[in-house]
Amino acid sequence: MGAVTTPKQDRSRATRQRLLASAVACLAEHGWAGSTVTVVAEHAGVSRGAAQHHFPTREDLFTGAVEYVAEERSAALRALPVQDRAAVIAALVDLYTGPLFRAALQLWVAASNEAQLRPRVTELEARVGREAHRIAVELLGADESRPGVRETVQGLLDMARGLGLANVLTDDTARRRKVVAQWAALLDEALG
Amino acid sequence: MGAVTTPKQDRSRATRQRLLASAVACLAEHGWAGSTVTVVAEHAGVSRGAAQHHFPTREDLFTGAVEYVAEERSAALRALPVQDRAAVIAALVDLYTGPLFRAALQLWVAASNEAQLRPRVTELEARVGREAHRIAVELLGADESRPGVRETVQGLLDMARGLGLANVLTDDTARRRKVVAQWAALLDEALG
Repeated sequence: MGAVTTPKQDRSRATRQRLLASAVACLAEHGWAGSTVTVVAEHAGVSRGAAQHHFPTREDLFTGAVEYVAEERSAALRALPVQDRAAVIAALVDLYTGPLFRAALQLWVAASNEAQLRPRVTELEARVGREAHRIAVELLGADESRPGVRETVQGLLDMARGLGLANVLTDDTARRRKVVAQWAALLDEALG
Repeated sequence: MGAVTTPKQDRSRATRQRLLASAVACLAEHGWAGSTVTVVAEHAGVSRGAAQHHFPTREDLFTGAVEYVAEERSAALRALPVQDRAAVIAALVDLYTGPLFRAALQLWVAASNEAQLRPRVTELEARVGREAHRIAVELLGADESRPGVRETVQGLLDMARGLGLANVLTDDTARRRKVVAQWAALLDEALG
């Protein structure tokens, strides 16, 4: 029941989405310094002028990209299926080892050096973090009224983030599977 | 009983160390892109010519800096005092939230985008990781012949890395203390 859009509006929206996805891809590939508007426009197959129509400045483009990554990560979290605890934990950890986490990592590190990016990234990161926690509690069937349960779940998400970081330079899959299996057993006991 | 050094050699060594420390500081402050040899030399209070005498190329300088950070992190690990488990875990986690971790994080992310840095950073990271694991096992009195113990300790170090990342954009100390206290209790039980 959304507003009716014209083909022109659809095309404009598609171009915008392509630019945001390209901004994220360029950030993961070239880092913040290498990701100029020109580089991103080229990656998206869009003219520099069209890119600037959508995003007048580089900050506009990357603020949009930060939001885009946050929304994609939230959507991925909400799409996690209800399964047994070990499967839920494995699926949560998987979200931290894919391309969205890599993009978020590039944004965090860029934001720690770039004052223009920092407030927006910090705010959205807090939002995604709260959402990840809420969804983890729900899918794990964790009773947060019991002492320590809240911190147990938080620690799991911290571990997932650390596993994501360990996977940036090398393929850490084999080691990660064993660590996750062991901690899934420990957490299952701790959560009762 | 080391070789006798002349005052000139001592000065040269001190300049070299200052350049490496400055390379790390610049990386944490300006990221890879902003950390040119000129910027690092200025930060160290050394002429560009003197900097180039020690490190002919930017890659030489940052390869040296990667090694310097790895050595400092190893030294910090080896200096951890023998204490009760909760204190050991808190001290281990602290190593991942300080300036050396931030510098290492900048190097990881730079290495993921810069082919020249990648092999050296990956190799040294693996070395520091093995050392962290060995020291953690020792200080925690963990018996790795028991099934699951190895992965339990690895998961703790992954969590510490994730907590370090959570501390990059905001001061996460208060939340982190509670998470670490809870996970220390879980680990104590799991390690027996």
